[in-house]
Amino acid sequence: MQSIRTETGIRNTAILLIYCPDKQGILAAVTEFLNENRGNIIYLDQHVDHEEGIFYMRVEWELDKFAIPREKIADYFQTLIAQKFTIKFSLHFSDKRPRMAVFVSKMSHCLFDILSRYTAGDWETDIPVIISNHDTLRPVAQRFGIDFHLIEKNNSNKAVQEQKELEILKQYNIDFVVLARYMQVLSDQFVANYPNGIINIHHSFLPAFAGAKPYHAAHERGVKIIGATSHYVTIDLDAGPIIAQDVVRISHIDNVDSLIRKGRDLEKIVLSEAVYKHLQRKILVYNNRTVVFN
Amino acid sequence: MQSIRTETGIRNTAILLIYCPDKQGILAAVTEFLNENRGNIIYLDQHVDHEEGIFYMRVEWELDKFAIPREKIADYFQTLIAQKFTIKFSLHFSDKRPRMAVFVSKMSHCLFDILSRYTAGDWETDIPVIISNHDTLRPVAQRFGIDFHLIEKNNSNKAVQEQKELEILKQYNIDFVVLARYMQVLSDQFVANYPNGIINIHHSFLPAFAGAKPYHAAHERGVKIIGATSHYVTIDLDAGPIIAQDVVRISHIDNVDSLIRKGRDLEKIVLSEAVYKHLQRKILVYNNRTVVFN
Amino acid sequence: MQSIRTETGIRNTAILLIYCPDKQGILAAVTEFLNENRGNIIYLDQHVDHEEGIFYMRVEWELDKFAIPREKIADYFQTLIAQKFTIKFSLHFSDKRPRMAVFVSKMSHCLFDILSRYTAGDWETDIPVIISNHDTLRPVAQRFGIDFHLIEKNNSNKAVQEQKELEILKQYNIDFVVLARYMQVLSDQFVANYPNGIINIHHSFLPAFAGAKPYHAAHERGVKIIGATSHYVTIDLDAGPIIAQDVVRISHIDNVDSLIRKGRDLEKIVLSEAVYKHLQRKILVYNNRTVVFN
Amino acid sequence: MQSIRTETGIRNTAILLIYCPDKQGILAAVTEFLNENRGNIIYLDQHVDHEEGIFYMRVEWELDKFAIPREKIADYFQTLIAQKFTIKFSLHFSDKRPRMAVFVSKMSHCLFDILSRYTAGDWETDIPVIISNHDTLRPVAQRFGIDFHLIEKNNSNKAVQEQKELEILKQYNIDFVVLARYMQVLSDQFVANYPNGIINIHHSFLPAFAGAKPYHAAHERGVKIIGATSHYVTIDLDAGPIIAQDVVRISHIDNVDSLIRKGRDLEKIVLSEAVYKHLQRKILVYNNRTVVFN
Repeated sequence: MQSIRTETGIRNTAILLIYCPDKQGILAAVTEFLNENRGNIIYLDQHVDHEEGIFYMRVEWELDKFAIPREKIADYFQTLIAQKFTIKFSLHFSDKRPRMAVFVSKMSHCLFDILSRYTAGDWETDIPVIISNHDTLRPVAQRFGIDFHLIEKNNSNKAVQEQKELEILKQYNIDFVVLARYMQVLSDQFVANYPNGIINIHHSFLPAFAGAKPYHAAHERGVKIIGATSHYVTIDLDAGPIIAQDVVRISHIDNVDSLIRKGRDLEKIVLSEAVYKHLQRKILVYNNRTVVFN
Repeated sequence: MQSIRTETGIRNTAILLIYCPDKQGILAAVTEFLNENRGNIIYLDQHVDHEEGIFYMRVEWELDKFAIPREKIADYFQTLIAQKFTIKFSLHFSDKRPRMAVFVSKMSHCLFDILSRYTAGDWETDIPVIISNHDTLRPVAQRFGIDFHLIEKNNSNKAVQEQKELEILKQYNIDFVVLARYMQVLSDQFVANYPNGIINIHHSFLPAFAGAKPYHAAHERGVKIIGATSHYVTIDLDAGPIIAQDVVRISHIDNVDSLIRKGRDLEKIVLSEAVYKHLQRKILVYNNRTVVFN
Repeated sequence: MQSIRTETGIRNTAILLIYCPDKQGILAAVTEFLNENRGNIIYLDQHVDHEEGIFYMRVEWELDKFAIPREKIADYFQTLIAQKFTIKFSLHFSDKRPRMAVFVSKMSHCLFDILSRYTAGDWETDIPVIISNHDTLRPVAQRFGIDFHLIEKNNSNKAVQEQKELEILKQYNIDFVVLARYMQVLSDQFVANYPNGIINIHHSFLPAFAGAKPYHAAHERGVKIIGATSHYVTIDLDAGPIIAQDVVRISHIDNVDSLIRKGRDLEKIVLSEAVYKHLQRKILVYNNRTVVFN
Repeated sequence: MQSIRTETGIRNTAILLIYCPDKQGILAAVTEFLNENRGNIIYLDQHVDHEEGIFYMRVEWELDKFAIPREKIADYFQTLIAQKFTIKFSLHFSDKRPRMAVFVSKMSHCLFDILSRYTAGDWETDIPVIISNHDTLRPVAQRFGIDFHLIEKNNSNKAVQEQKELEILKQYNIDFVVLARYMQVLSDQFVANYPNGIINIHHSFLPAFAGAKPYHAAHERGVKIIGATSHYVTIDLDAGPIIAQDVVRISHIDNVDSLIRKGRDLEKIVLSEAVYKHLQRKILVYNNRTVVFN
């Protein structure tokens, strides 16, 4: 399906995500480096974790008049700034659209929400492929014109099937994976391929109700608020760095079915918020926690 | 597009929505009427507005063993109960799916949200037709297999074009209309055809920022929270009975573009919540206010 | 300190809290019982848990013209209605003000919030005594004219000291206890004296971060929302029936200190909400869950 | 009443609040100025309003090793930095506690909330005086050991009485005024004495329901959410720069009384949040909007 938004202004900018031990002068050094080379800063946000002594920064600047050619920016920044302050950084360009794969099972609400935003042109991404362990959502993929691969899994074939999935991801040049209510646990080997590159939605307010059937558990416990949590997948189940959370108020009137119904809206909004922040390169991960810039 | 949910339990129930001057004995009279005739009550909620002296009630019961044939329920209830208490009531059957038309302009987010829920089988409704004053969203309608009618309007042809719209609604047997970010004001004549039967989404926290460009106005005023409001359309613009509202926190960092982005999620969720409540026959309107049962 | 509200309308009403196995006719039977005896119903709410098959109800009616004398209501209701439907009920009178004791340690925010509402006359209660394991808040008690008892505890004297506390509660005719950030675990023996009669505030969104130092744990986990939970105390720590919860959004910018600061507002509002509902006799407990009527 | 917190770490820091036309190099220039003079930055946040072309910044640094004596900082900053970038700035020192006056009428909830935080030592401020047009809350002031002045007003004596109020404020060296549900409109002449120095709480979600009786108006309109708004007072009633807002969900069950009850919690929390931000010098005002730093 063609994007229904006819024009999107393509910005020609570079983005630096930085973290390093906090020291005097880092902020001044980075902004000077950009200013001196005629890089007009259009976004700057920084955060100091005084407890851990870590400085975090996201800066975005226009490349049009920038004196350093884009292919040399990383090298120059490393030499002139990063090594002085022991900075770890990643460099991104806004005209490079990350490529995203979506993993689904049978539930459609998160997938529809993703494809709606994608079709409307709200996200600077390409979604060439959907992978599922069920055939249920193939028609949805077809209507949106996206390739759909059925990779069924069971306990005995998991390693083989994950290998197939990884090959598909490679074939489509996928940069990051979104688990849109994908009801399978990925192996550590799979996860290792995409560090901070697999975004999951868990249907509870983590760390409460990790694991299976969180709405049943929430109802059983009698909570008055339920939630949803998007996080990067790590080898510890439901314990990766949290990107976004949201909640909705419930009451004794709700049963498990109505929790599931109300939870769907939370899940899709929270997952899409996490994807948006990831696409904007606004997330830094350190010590299993995220800095999510505004 | 076929529903991707293969089975939905069709309940065989009747629903009474009631209001009348508050008096002793109404609740007992209604529940006795149902009990005596072997109507198993599966939902009952009532509300007394002590200020206005009005009693409101929604009751739903199983028809399987109910002694009164469904076509005679209204008559019996009127004769035996309603006239005694000056009750105004409407009677609905859960196996009668209301038929819904969607009006759109260029923005797709509310339409996608509606069609996602519809396709997933979350709503007991049929959506046979989409009407628009622009051709932009025709491809969306096509992919979901729903008829699309382009009815362009301007100041000089409005009456004629609205007549066409009404004919289409009649032809498709439409019970209620959802304005999914439809950017045209409907005439009083049009509105009169669907009392409490046209649901609009306004992209502000009404009554703040009624009228055009509410996000611009919100930004200009410097509010710290924005909202969205779904309401029944009346002849007073943006002043009909409010069904649902929701808000999201913003800050000085937000500009009009980010308000629009954040507002989209509010709009679609709030509109769909109102449609859901309408489909569930959980809304009563009195004095331009709604009772929305849980 | 005298109440600064000079007049409060004392209502002369009775309140029934009911639960029983769900059957046809309960609601009609109860409302008929009241109507026939000229009890004007001013509040009625009911809930059916279809999963457990339990019917819950709260009904309040005016006693002025009620045919049954107040001291005989319980007996008549038991004989005529309750035994027929296996109803368990409690009967309350709105002119009987429950007497409340507050337990505190060093933090003042919840105590101040309670005393502010009490002094303003917002609550129909009497607070004759504050008990603490520290002397820190004695001046607060004095300024509000409330007796203050210091009962210091350690591991070796706990049983003895709790006995003193129970005697004080008896001496002051206390109906229920509020733990306003009281940093001591009560023994099972103590708790057994006040079933559903001890309200605690836990400074997390339970069941997440039960136990000690929840703000530290929340910060460590990197959650994006923190919460507070009020619940009845049972012998299982932080696992009693939840009455109210609320949350506030946080971000990477927050450290433990700012979580503690933001959490204070949550704690005091959530605890006071629970106390208010308790005073209104709007809470029913079943299966370690609460029904909290509106 | 003595502060019940025995020790508060007094920080020895300076705070600069800055705004100016956005240009390259401002951030670098300011941070260099501080770094070169050995001012250890412990807080830095900045915001660029790209629409208006305005740069905003708050920076806080330790004075212990800072090369420039505190009494000369403003002069040096003006000469070396501010004039180059046409910066408007205000300089504050964290060990200078702003002095606050509270204006009240009859309602106590906001006053109690303020005094609770003050007594607990949560705020770096002094509150030497409370002014009221009613005698109702004098006992509260007395219990907290704060001077109380009754200044009754009517239409004919307003100018004279406001003059008395201004004299009292002068006598107590008051830096800013908090209107804690003070039910009188201040004259333009009065307001002119405290630009961005009078904080009001309005009991609605502004701009909805400005003016008198907002809860009645909200009930009449049938909104599903109510709010409260704190703002700086300007000569336009309820139209000054908004500092903080919060909302709570309501329903058809609520009447005006319950809106007032629920609103009280909103009002006190939102007003205290605004006071806290003001005390932290985290608010900048431009074009009748606020930048409120985190």
